[in-house]
Amino acid sequence: MSNKIKYPFFVFNPKSYLYGEELLKLAKHADELALKYPECSILVTVPFADIMAVKNATQNIIVTAQHMDGIVPGRGIGHVLPESIYHAGARAVFLNHAERPMTVAALAQAIKRAKDLGIETIVCADSIAEAKSVAIMGADVILCEPTELIGTGQTSDSSYIEQTNQAIKEIDETILVMQAAGISTADDVYRTIELGADGTGCTSGITNADSPAGMLTDMVDALMKAYRERG
Amino acid sequence: MSNKIKYPFFVFNPKSYLYGEELLKLAKHADELALKYPECSILVTVPFADIMAVKNATQNIIVTAQHMDGIVPGRGIGHVLPESIYHAGARAVFLNHAERPMTVAALAQAIKRAKDLGIETIVCADSIAEAKSVAIMGADVILCEPTELIGTGQTSDSSYIEQTNQAIKEIDETILVMQAAGISTADDVYRTIELGADGTGCTSGITNADSPAGMLTDMVDALMKAYRERG
Amino acid sequence: MSNKIKYPFFVFNPKSYLYGEELLKLAKHADELALKYPECSILVTVPFADIMAVKNATQNIIVTAQHMDGIVPGRGIGHVLPESIYHAGARAVFLNHAERPMTVAALAQAIKRAKDLGIETIVCADSIAEAKSVAIMGADVILCEPTELIGTGQTSDSSYIEQTNQAIKEIDETILVMQAAGISTADDVYRTIELGADGTGCTSGITNADSPAGMLTDMVDALMKAYRERG
Amino acid sequence: MSNKIKYPFFVFNPKSYLYGEELLKLAKHADELALKYPECSILVTVPFADIMAVKNATQNIIVTAQHMDGIVPGRGIGHVLPESIYHAGARAVFLNHAERPMTVAALAQAIKRAKDLGIETIVCADSIAEAKSVAIMGADVILCEPTELIGTGQTSDSSYIEQTNQAIKEIDETILVMQAAGISTADDVYRTIELGADGTGCTSGITNADSPAGMLTDMVDALMKAYRERG
Repeated sequence: MSNKIKYPFFVFNPKSYLYGEELLKLAKHADELALKYPECSILVTVPFADIMAVKNATQNIIVTAQHMDGIVPGRGIGHVLPESIYHAGARAVFLNHAERPMTVAALAQAIKRAKDLGIETIVCADSIAEAKSVAIMGADVILCEPTELIGTGQTSDSSYIEQTNQAIKEIDETILVMQAAGISTADDVYRTIELGADGTGCTSGITNADSPAGMLTDMVDALMKAYRERG
Repeated sequence: MSNKIKYPFFVFNPKSYLYGEELLKLAKHADELALKYPECSILVTVPFADIMAVKNATQNIIVTAQHMDGIVPGRGIGHVLPESIYHAGARAVFLNHAERPMTVAALAQAIKRAKDLGIETIVCADSIAEAKSVAIMGADVILCEPTELIGTGQTSDSSYIEQTNQAIKEIDETILVMQAAGISTADDVYRTIELGADGTGCTSGITNADSPAGMLTDMVDALMKAYRERG
Repeated sequence: MSNKIKYPFFVFNPKSYLYGEELLKLAKHADELALKYPECSILVTVPFADIMAVKNATQNIIVTAQHMDGIVPGRGIGHVLPESIYHAGARAVFLNHAERPMTVAALAQAIKRAKDLGIETIVCADSIAEAKSVAIMGADVILCEPTELIGTGQTSDSSYIEQTNQAIKEIDETILVMQAAGISTADDVYRTIELGADGTGCTSGITNADSPAGMLTDMVDALMKAYRERG
Repeated sequence: MSNKIKYPFFVFNPKSYLYGEELLKLAKHADELALKYPECSILVTVPFADIMAVKNATQNIIVTAQHMDGIVPGRGIGHVLPESIYHAGARAVFLNHAERPMTVAALAQAIKRAKDLGIETIVCADSIAEAKSVAIMGADVILCEPTELIGTGQTSDSSYIEQTNQAIKEIDETILVMQAAGISTADDVYRTIELGADGTGCTSGITNADSPAGMLTDMVDALMKAYRERG
């Protein structure tokens, strides 16, 4: 499989809700969905210490780190060395999430190191000004998440999606745009792709579902349905 | 006087080396130079607590804060409220210096608040990738300071100056480019402007000089000489 | 007047809600209250850029900075130099507030620099473990503010106040204990002192009152009433 | 084996210098040394993503994380969840290193979470004031590393070791004191234990040695020799 993230894509982002066996089980389920739908990319974000176990148990998902630092091998205790997560199996990384913001300099260095190693970057931006700024830095995917909507169960509207798409693609049309604010149902996934996002994702809508695996299936099904209809 | 920073400009940036009477004395000297050379802008950066005293004692320099936070009046103890520094007399602000780095989100908010209030922003960038990123965010001046050169007494070479100028002006030709790495003599000032920078500045080259006021005069004289020769 | 904070004390802490003229007016009002009640200490926290104006207009309050960095004159653009705030008139400083947390090393250095200059430290602690930790570092006053109560309008109960008092005074009985969680009325002030706090303070309960000056008066009156009754 | 760190102990701390196979090889070598010398504890710090592989390949060392955050399962993308590193095999953790400093509140929470899970904490302190402060927070081991000595090849002298020992053991005599500034030879290890440290450790003295495994052996031999002589 290629590790290049493609349209459409879905990110199962359990943050720090899951680890160990429970995470592994859902990652394997995501792997089956990725096998079923080879047209899309499915990413699963995992704690650093779980990367190797998830990588070893899967073949079709893109195992994704939740952060990394733009350092080279050397000093830096407690930092996340790009080589260590790549060696463990990560092929994509989230950077600059509102829960783990980065300085301009640190983000620029991390994007550079990711390109060196062949790790895809999903860079978060809270506003259109930020989205343009990280587009020009060379992000592969930009997650446009108006900070005030995170965790509210309210999704971005069509005007916001259209504006961010336009602002980003004007700078580099190969950058993929992810919209994931407030995604809690399969319908939210369907509508977000229908409105023009390249990909989406979900955290607590899956981890808190009665059947997390069932919800994951429904969401990926909805992603593919919207994708096929959009043409 | 207008507070809009113009080409050519000189920043006397005593950082945390000076405060109180000693700072005031040099700020007044800078004010005389600014009166003598109305074609240029002279900025003096001062600790927050010195802004009002320096503003009250000067008329021609642009009193410059060393940082501010992109907050609005409300909570936020210990943060630097834009309204408070504006009221005290600051009309420009440094943002994202390597000694006070900002997250992407915080920088975007601070630039926005500066525009709201009419405070000019001098935004620091350690690399060309960063310079482009802050250009697109709307900085008024970009200080291009390769981190590894700060405090080494080594100036940026002509190739670096040319590249950063081009990268920045391509995005917005009204942005002014400041080059100040390793400026320690009047000759450094002359050469930096001659090589194409819109402005420059100095810290310890002035504060540690036998005669700080004399060195300040020499540097501003050199700035104007290069400016007039460049035409 | 002495700048040593004494029991009982009241902190008017307008954070970033106020600056300029409006802040000055309330600071002058606090100054009259401090003149009326010489047995107590009244502190007013002000933005860095307002320290000098407030100091120049008052004689009896302790003008208090909202933060400072433990640096010495030198490099450090955008940091808060202790000498600069002392020169402007600050004689006390808040450190480690939940809205401006400090690393262990930075806090230790700031406390050391405050002692060098004769600036009183009010150090914030979110839990009893933290309160003991900052007590042993040499804080002059410890503000015990369970993070989860800030801004909820819910005050600390007698058991919490008793436990923190005991934990702190066991380490150093000269440290003053401030309890200010959820103070929004004069009654809250009265009860907090009655329950054993050495001092208290308020932010939005005053700034959002119909008459901020009236509320400030009521709160300081309540402080003195509880103090006299406690004996 | 017990995971309780005991006197004497040695920390092989390759920071971000090593990962993957090279790290694994040296960790296995450390494991043989730990088997040979059951009286001492040998810790190996590893990048988060390497914890599981190192744990699976060893039986006698204490696999040690380089940092963790004091969070509980839930939100917090990019943070280091204690449960995730414990599940992967970490039984000790470094906290508050000068290269990864923590706020007072974050450190207090991380120590609490470590106790919940049975993870031993090695907490760094740059000065005696900090050492006392983290002792009272409940650290299991305190690494006393005067910041200015890190990486200089200069070790702490006997007076510094004596003073820190005394300051810490006065607060809690069960806390172990680690001294590791400037350790680059087996002689440095010997002398540091002889002078009264409970344990020591090394980074580049091992990773940059002609034979890292040989140097590791020599250092652990020296540790045991000093321990036996000290009685």
